[in-house]
Amino acid sequence: MSHSTSGHNSGKKFKLVVARDLGPDVMPILHSRPELDKIEPARDPGFLKMHKELLASSSCFLIGYDIPTSHRTGDHRIYTGLIPAGPDLKVISTMSVGYEHVDLDALGTRGIRLGYTPDVLTEAVADVTLMLALMAGRNVKETAALVDRGEWPKYTWSPFSFCGPQISSDWVRPTRTAGFIGFGRIAQATLARLIPFGITHCLYTSNPSSPRSSELEASILEKHPTLQVVERVDLLEVARQSDVVFVLAPGGEKTKYIVNEAFLKEMKKSAIIVNTSRGTLVDSDALAKALKEGWIWGAGLDVVDGEPNVDQDHPLVKEPRCVVLPHIGSATTETRLGMATLAAKNVLGGIFGENMPAELRLQSSK
Amino acid sequence: MSHSTSGHNSGKKFKLVVARDLGPDVMPILHSRPELDKIEPARDPGFLKMHKELLASSSCFLIGYDIPTSHRTGDHRIYTGLIPAGPDLKVISTMSVGYEHVDLDALGTRGIRLGYTPDVLTEAVADVTLMLALMAGRNVKETAALVDRGEWPKYTWSPFSFCGPQISSDWVRPTRTAGFIGFGRIAQATLARLIPFGITHCLYTSNPSSPRSSELEASILEKHPTLQVVERVDLLEVARQSDVVFVLAPGGEKTKYIVNEAFLKEMKKSAIIVNTSRGTLVDSDALAKALKEGWIWGAGLDVVDGEPNVDQDHPLVKEPRCVVLPHIGSATTETRLGMATLAAKNVLGGIFGENMPAELRLQSSK
Repeated sequence: MSHSTSGHNSGKKFKLVVARDLGPDVMPILHSRPELDKIEPARDPGFLKMHKELLASSSCFLIGYDIPTSHRTGDHRIYTGLIPAGPDLKVISTMSVGYEHVDLDALGTRGIRLGYTPDVLTEAVADVTLMLALMAGRNVKETAALVDRGEWPKYTWSPFSFCGPQISSDWVRPTRTAGFIGFGRIAQATLARLIPFGITHCLYTSNPSSPRSSELEASILEKHPTLQVVERVDLLEVARQSDVVFVLAPGGEKTKYIVNEAFLKEMKKSAIIVNTSRGTLVDSDALAKALKEGWIWGAGLDVVDGEPNVDQDHPLVKEPRCVVLPHIGSATTETRLGMATLAAKNVLGGIFGENMPAELRLQSSK
Repeated sequence: MSHSTSGHNSGKKFKLVVARDLGPDVMPILHSRPELDKIEPARDPGFLKMHKELLASSSCFLIGYDIPTSHRTGDHRIYTGLIPAGPDLKVISTMSVGYEHVDLDALGTRGIRLGYTPDVLTEAVADVTLMLALMAGRNVKETAALVDRGEWPKYTWSPFSFCGPQISSDWVRPTRTAGFIGFGRIAQATLARLIPFGITHCLYTSNPSSPRSSELEASILEKHPTLQVVERVDLLEVARQSDVVFVLAPGGEKTKYIVNEAFLKEMKKSAIIVNTSRGTLVDSDALAKALKEGWIWGAGLDVVDGEPNVDQDHPLVKEPRCVVLPHIGSATTETRLGMATLAAKNVLGGIFGENMPAELRLQSSK
């Protein structure tokens, strides 16, 4: 690919497509580089309109590539996967921790570099993960709606109305088990937040091809002295034992519908399931059935299979014990600033053949 | 009070009014005592209808008193405060940690014993307290409503939409301050839950007549090694310094509208306020104004002044950044079972002149 090795010393302009305005704190990082010919949403609405599907999705948006200026119109295919990459694409920088929307094989073959934004969003997503577990257990969807509909004045209190299962351990049952599908950074940050609630047992399941790490387990036990058990188990054992199950594995074909009828049928009737990773991991129809038929207590979702095409008639939106949020896991000012900054630095590193602060190593990740 | 010293050995029947069905796990505690002539909701709907105001309120409901059987009708005034106590009232057992609905002076004067349910609800209320702080910061009211109205498919993602302040500390700002109005059990349980979020500073304000306890502060610092500061300060200092303010003081005249315009004006624009204690502590109009005019970021309320008379036109229900829940703080199956059991044991202890597991000492509490 001769164009990509022509380098930044040739005097040639690099074209950078910025699919979303990164705001006044981060755009100057890009504006400060005169070597860049930038297409920005505000300046080129036609481009945005053309790539509507791409741009409406939450995780595809900062894209850097270098092409001759004359190629500016129409058929620039910038994304592999959703949208095929154009012939001059050199680097993709996605403002997300996930990258299942990008065709890694094609990128590897063509030598296109990929930047992403891990770590910076760990805390924000762990916050929402814990929040959804609480909301699902405490019937927030029903009770908040009661207030919003103006029905509080008519509501007659009784000792057990709206009572759900308590996440916190109690005097009758002083143990609680949290189960994790996927046990990476966000899962571990979620576990840390659960400790003061009296979670005493942590079960997790991981990619079967990766070895069990007794070092990791020992370090987690050392970090959390009140935790009695940390154990890697089979997927269905997570379902059987957990009071709350957290879905925090990567998306993609390997994990598609890993939470299905078989999994949900093994769960406790009083259990909660939370998904803040990718919608594809949970079979929506199976979950709606599990909620409707009382196989489990409730669910909290920040992601839904097929999002954002989730309307009022979606079976999960209609379930009173299923909280659905529109993928806001990382949506805090602090975290999005961190992600945007990292994405901007990644794209510059990729364009100029320099270090990208968070580059996915494509060969080794296959 | 001769009737209250006649004791349980006289063969006389004691009349117990149970204002709410305590469910199949707890009612047998009362059913097992043949000395009790019980009026229960299911058996005597006329009684319930008569005391509608009392019985519709969330915290008044298990009431034990001994009166001659002939006094059964009409004018039994069982509650001091809301409803005057009848002449034969011996014990009140409220299934709540608060008792501002009871006239303590009148009870003390007449020797009526009061049981309540502290401690057992600490964890459940702390859970909801933390949940509301997260919900208020993360724009859950707006984002969940967007999904429920079927607007997710039409929603165009942008890097900073729906972004709120992050409770968790971050790489740019590695400290966070939690402020507490009232620093009892529930506040301390809430603080414990905040530690893994990176809360580093704890400011609190307490009843001015109670001395500052450096022992308490030292024990809290020892318990939470990552906490840098625990300090009792003036009320307005809590407002000025805190990223999130928790209202967790008792209700009653002394704390009425302690959160008013003056307090809210001192708060940070990015701050959150959470009230899970009693509605009377927060001036609703002042809070609605603060939210509308952007003095603060958001609010999470489980209690509202004048509840349950909070309808769709209530200024706080109309605020998009004010989550309002219908007083479900203690509403978990585990906790309500614990509260109901304790309330039942309290009333039996009071009736039979025995130990009440959680009795409010009326003389010393004045």
